[in-house]
Amino acid sequence: MNKYGAEFFGTFWLVLGGCGSAVLAAAFPELGIGLLGVSLAFGLTVLTMAFAIGHISGCHLNPAVSIGLWAGGRFPANQLLPYIIAQVLGGLAAGGVLYLIASGQAGFDVSNGFAANGYGAHSPGQYRLTSALISEVVMTMMFLVVILGATDQRAPQGFAPIAIGLCLTLIHLISIPVTNTSVNPARSTGVALYVGDWATAQLWLFWVAPIAGAILGAFVYRFIGNEKES
Amino acid sequence: MNKYGAEFFGTFWLVLGGCGSAVLAAAFPELGIGLLGVSLAFGLTVLTMAFAIGHISGCHLNPAVSIGLWAGGRFPANQLLPYIIAQVLGGLAAGGVLYLIASGQAGFDVSNGFAANGYGAHSPGQYRLTSALISEVVMTMMFLVVILGATDQRAPQGFAPIAIGLCLTLIHLISIPVTNTSVNPARSTGVALYVGDWATAQLWLFWVAPIAGAILGAFVYRFIGNEKES
Amino acid sequence: MNKYGAEFFGTFWLVLGGCGSAVLAAAFPELGIGLLGVSLAFGLTVLTMAFAIGHISGCHLNPAVSIGLWAGGRFPANQLLPYIIAQVLGGLAAGGVLYLIASGQAGFDVSNGFAANGYGAHSPGQYRLTSALISEVVMTMMFLVVILGATDQRAPQGFAPIAIGLCLTLIHLISIPVTNTSVNPARSTGVALYVGDWATAQLWLFWVAPIAGAILGAFVYRFIGNEKES
Amino acid sequence: MNKYGAEFFGTFWLVLGGCGSAVLAAAFPELGIGLLGVSLAFGLTVLTMAFAIGHISGCHLNPAVSIGLWAGGRFPANQLLPYIIAQVLGGLAAGGVLYLIASGQAGFDVSNGFAANGYGAHSPGQYRLTSALISEVVMTMMFLVVILGATDQRAPQGFAPIAIGLCLTLIHLISIPVTNTSVNPARSTGVALYVGDWATAQLWLFWVAPIAGAILGAFVYRFIGNEKES
Repeated sequence: MNKYGAEFFGTFWLVLGGCGSAVLAAAFPELGIGLLGVSLAFGLTVLTMAFAIGHISGCHLNPAVSIGLWAGGRFPANQLLPYIIAQVLGGLAAGGVLYLIASGQAGFDVSNGFAANGYGAHSPGQYRLTSALISEVVMTMMFLVVILGATDQRAPQGFAPIAIGLCLTLIHLISIPVTNTSVNPARSTGVALYVGDWATAQLWLFWVAPIAGAILGAFVYRFIGNEKES
Repeated sequence: MNKYGAEFFGTFWLVLGGCGSAVLAAAFPELGIGLLGVSLAFGLTVLTMAFAIGHISGCHLNPAVSIGLWAGGRFPANQLLPYIIAQVLGGLAAGGVLYLIASGQAGFDVSNGFAANGYGAHSPGQYRLTSALISEVVMTMMFLVVILGATDQRAPQGFAPIAIGLCLTLIHLISIPVTNTSVNPARSTGVALYVGDWATAQLWLFWVAPIAGAILGAFVYRFIGNEKES
Repeated sequence: MNKYGAEFFGTFWLVLGGCGSAVLAAAFPELGIGLLGVSLAFGLTVLTMAFAIGHISGCHLNPAVSIGLWAGGRFPANQLLPYIIAQVLGGLAAGGVLYLIASGQAGFDVSNGFAANGYGAHSPGQYRLTSALISEVVMTMMFLVVILGATDQRAPQGFAPIAIGLCLTLIHLISIPVTNTSVNPARSTGVALYVGDWATAQLWLFWVAPIAGAILGAFVYRFIGNEKES
Repeated sequence: MNKYGAEFFGTFWLVLGGCGSAVLAAAFPELGIGLLGVSLAFGLTVLTMAFAIGHISGCHLNPAVSIGLWAGGRFPANQLLPYIIAQVLGGLAAGGVLYLIASGQAGFDVSNGFAANGYGAHSPGQYRLTSALISEVVMTMMFLVVILGATDQRAPQGFAPIAIGLCLTLIHLISIPVTNTSVNPARSTGVALYVGDWATAQLWLFWVAPIAGAILGAFVYRFIGNEKES
């Protein structure tokens, strides 16, 4: 049960930290952290948790990552479902805590976005569906390449949390304007359900694209990494 | 005595660096570092000191951390009081040095805030008391999860200062708008006493909430980390 | 073939991440990541890939780096051509994917720059040719000094991806206003061909200067590093 | 001779990177990196060089650091003069290269500051002399505490370049508004001589205060670190 608890609290931290920085601090008058600060926050949730719980659960915090690791021969199929459930519940708990904190400010309105992911009219930069799809697939694909590579036995040991956390920062630096950046169905679900409406209507893309990208990433690393064990 | 001196200078650095960057540089015209820079500064005080004095005192720099480590079975009860005294004195010394530097600019007025923590009318974003309480409790709870996890014997060795320092950066990226971010009673006390008035009147919350959060964090990590030694 | 695939995907990531952050996110209204975010993105592409594929191909991602490593006695001449081909193809593939994503926003116009490198009228700050030449030569020279030094057997093991990635961040923090920063012919080519016109006309400088700088850097490190093996 | 060459090129990089980012990129219209980007640049010059040449010269890049290390019993007195000469020459060479690049933009005027350090009317925030003195002394003191602590044999091995580089970033995040941040006489000299006038007239403080602070820092670490070997 330890590892499910770890995935729960880890994904809780990812969504609270990443989406929390976006909702509470990104557009703070004059001193706001902007998309750069949000990108850093998302990455640091993973960096910190990977050092804190990597030895317990592997610190996936993301259904697409769990599925990509399975496709890459690094994670057993029978663990997929409990991991994904723990991740989604952690994301939803974070959305709830964030709602409690954010609603303590006058004028708070969850329908302003609450850091939910979207495309078309709900993309931060109004990018259309195809851009959103390509972006989410390619970003998650490269995320998995970095995860599989940095945790390869031939890579320097102990550094994977830095590589993987800062890779998530990088992904946000590129793609927040396109989709608000998901690459993680649990992160998307954790806030979309509070927004409802368009956010839940568009949620399918943020399950389909990250998972497809993760599986692609596993194949890319299998090709370039030439691993025998899988 | 070495370790009390280390905690004194370490907390001195945390308050001077974190609050100093906020007071001196955050709102510098056009080029100011904003909340992102302040968040980075707070985290880097801990990162740098954890490498510099971790081998001397463990580098807590924070009464809530010392208490959380005790609750997690990692720190002896009879060391709590001297550690906390050294931390508070270090914070107060930093507040004094910062006052000396900042007052060398025309127009300086300590009642503009001096980076003190607050809620309600004194929250940077006017968040009410319950938001402040939840934020400080949850942030400190997760801080302790990261501290306990990253210093676990099963975690990669040597990296804990990076994980813990950048976790403090992350916490600030999320929560400065809510309370100016404390998660550290010594940091709050170190500047509040110079501001007086509302800052000392609200100081209780920044002792109670971080300590409660730290104890909660110790229980969370005991649950997910399943440590035998405590 | 593994290592050519690794260089292809690695350079793909460098150009997609670095130029993508510039095209999509740098000037996002009010919350844009600016030159600081772009600098961080370029560096993180290298940091993440060096952990992910360093053990496969050495993670050059840059014809100037491959040539500088050869000049420094660290890379065989007969591998230069296939490495450079893989890098340029990876850069071009990234330019194509970025074009697909970016063109999903109304008003996208590739002739606005598409993160291409330039001098004179096409330098971001209108710096003239000599400034551009000096900047690209000196920046690449110091890049190679850091690469050769950080991968020296006497340097701390495992940290080179951090040093090299953050060196690329630093180079961008300094020199984006001068040339948009190349120090990498594959990065320049990967976007210039989509812009055409002035971008291809000025492309020669971003092959000549980085390569000259890289060779200079190899000599500098041979002088200060006093390596016997070459 | 290797180590003097290493100190020359290392200090060249510190001044070119730190002051270069300030002169070229800090105030770039709309997208400028600001004081946060400059702080990061200064720190990354040291982080990158410490990995690249730490095994050659120890990577001081700073007369105050060399003197502080001597005061801390870590550096022989007979090496002080050649180290300091190499550092100052490296700084001056960087100032010259930066001048060549920066003057390639129409409207460049070295008397706008050229990143020189100053106090009173020439402090970025018009802080008076006493603030400047306190700031430079205390910042250099804590810099030396971090340097001596992070390179202590009991500290995690290999991480010192990260701790020391990011400590310089932190110091800039706090104190650029006060003095433009020196803590390094070679950095101050490297640009002041090109500005002349007030910059050379105020240069004395940026030799005296950092050196005094460094010696103080050595005593602090001797007190808290309780080292036997000195």
